[in-house]
Amino acid sequence: MPSIDVLPSPGPQDVEAAAARLKGRALVTPLLEFPLVSERLGFRLLVKAETLQITGSFKFRGASNCLLAAREADPNLKAVVAFSSGNHAQGVAAAARMLGMKATIVMPADAPLIKVANTKALGAEVVPYDRRGEDREAIARAIAARDGGRIVPPFDDPHVIAGQGTVGREICEQSAALGLTPDVVMAPCSGGGLIAGIALAVRDRLPQAAVYAAEPADFDDLRRSLAAGRRLKNEGNASSICDALLSPQPGQITFPIHQRLLAGAFAVSDEQVLDAMNLALRHLKLVVEPGGAAALAAAFAERRNFAGKNVVVVCSGGNADPDMIKRAADRDDPLQ
Amino acid sequence: MPSIDVLPSPGPQDVEAAAARLKGRALVTPLLEFPLVSERLGFRLLVKAETLQITGSFKFRGASNCLLAAREADPNLKAVVAFSSGNHAQGVAAAARMLGMKATIVMPADAPLIKVANTKALGAEVVPYDRRGEDREAIARAIAARDGGRIVPPFDDPHVIAGQGTVGREICEQSAALGLTPDVVMAPCSGGGLIAGIALAVRDRLPQAAVYAAEPADFDDLRRSLAAGRRLKNEGNASSICDALLSPQPGQITFPIHQRLLAGAFAVSDEQVLDAMNLALRHLKLVVEPGGAAALAAAFAERRNFAGKNVVVVCSGGNADPDMIKRAADRDDPLQ
Repeated sequence: MPSIDVLPSPGPQDVEAAAARLKGRALVTPLLEFPLVSERLGFRLLVKAETLQITGSFKFRGASNCLLAAREADPNLKAVVAFSSGNHAQGVAAAARMLGMKATIVMPADAPLIKVANTKALGAEVVPYDRRGEDREAIARAIAARDGGRIVPPFDDPHVIAGQGTVGREICEQSAALGLTPDVVMAPCSGGGLIAGIALAVRDRLPQAAVYAAEPADFDDLRRSLAAGRRLKNEGNASSICDALLSPQPGQITFPIHQRLLAGAFAVSDEQVLDAMNLALRHLKLVVEPGGAAALAAAFAERRNFAGKNVVVVCSGGNADPDMIKRAADRDDPLQ
Repeated sequence: MPSIDVLPSPGPQDVEAAAARLKGRALVTPLLEFPLVSERLGFRLLVKAETLQITGSFKFRGASNCLLAAREADPNLKAVVAFSSGNHAQGVAAAARMLGMKATIVMPADAPLIKVANTKALGAEVVPYDRRGEDREAIARAIAARDGGRIVPPFDDPHVIAGQGTVGREICEQSAALGLTPDVVMAPCSGGGLIAGIALAVRDRLPQAAVYAAEPADFDDLRRSLAAGRRLKNEGNASSICDALLSPQPGQITFPIHQRLLAGAFAVSDEQVLDAMNLALRHLKLVVEPGGAAALAAAFAERRNFAGKNVVVVCSGGNADPDMIKRAADRDDPLQ
């Protein structure tokens, strides 16, 4: 079996290797059932609550797997650099701290305050940049060159994808423990590392499962790219409350996985996302951030098509500022 | 071994019997770890998230166990009656519906809207009463006599206590699976059924564990009763945001269990409860209702005394109205 250093596209075996590295480091987040909510939705809802992962999102998995693999290759590696709107920043900062490495994170100046504060609280140095005028990858490369650091990409990296894939591996094991087989698995999608990793793990064990990505309406690059058969970009002036899902296009490594393994992608509006956050606060008792609620919003929108099915929804992050929580709480109950 | 029909005080074996009845009916809620929050608190926090139980609180356990036991005794039992500020109402309504029984719930006219709406949505008939002028137990007895129904008391019943005790049984099993031994277990307390059941289960398996109750400051009847050695009442004009924790005094059955098995009781103010709800929203990504957050508030207040310990905090309910969620979200971060 070739190592992934010469085969950049990860496979199910890389998810297994990631699971071994992450054991005892990342949390096994619960797969939650909500029987009364499921009755009202018409499908059996199972929520994979990555909101409860260390740093409040799945990103700790991919970052930890990437850094653990990098240290296996270079035991002297001391510094890491990342660019991120927030959740990847916290994931990398926490993973670096766990391994005693210095972390520098290039973050947009308008990132949610909770994400900037949490990243700093984890000991990382935060370098702000202007989302519309500056090239965050160039800034990160310059810092990495200066410090001799490893860049941890947010999604387009085999180890990052394999680390996120452990979410899918746990979904399979936890579903089996509950005595059920998922018909549908949905997760939010930006660059597509999470949904690619999940698809690798889930389709390997459950080839019949339909795995879907959920994107913000004006950041539906994956949906359009899947239809076109090539990677398309989003409009430069698009906006969304899903601050974690603003990548301009699918990744070079992630997109072929999406093409091979996904059943499709759904796009959801800001209004649908806020309704899903409200549903989570009222009925699931979970705080889900806007981007983290995209798959829940899509599952709710598709509820008639999913009638009677076992639907696993990944709530991928919970780092919502209090103002966003209040905005979501203020809405009418979508189940009424 | 005498049956509990002739020995009203339940024991650990009744918790085991309840666990067998509830298997596949109540959810096994997760015992959640928060490593980064634990670092900042100075103790290892483990949250037993009964917010994620069916109906959003632990009450479904005791109600289901009580009705299942009642049906074992009388297979023709068709109607149930309960009086409750809200969470017990939902628990009884859901348990009755599961067993095909008619439920009538006597609820205060000023109960949180979400709790009244959820109780009705579960098919129960809701009979409102005036908390300050009417006797809810007399109203419930009259309805029970009319319908030939079984009254499911909110706490002072061996089957109810044993059912709530399954929370403690799961804490022991889930802690062991994580490879740790709880030093401290804390849960919110009103009439004391939950903390009595937990103490029965936990102290049987872990005699060294310190089990504490948490009460609202002006409803610290258990704390004062433990000190006095007899059951004392709260002031009639006391108030608290913890709408689920307003019982006037410890129960006749629960109090001797408290005396025998509890390490003590802590009282928390409304401000401390709101801070704990804020901590839960920001850092645990959990919606916890005021009464459900009392033990978290107490653990936070006692954090210096708990330094280095494994502290299990039961978050017992999550049925917070959106306005209460917003009020909690609006506060400064208690971990800053």
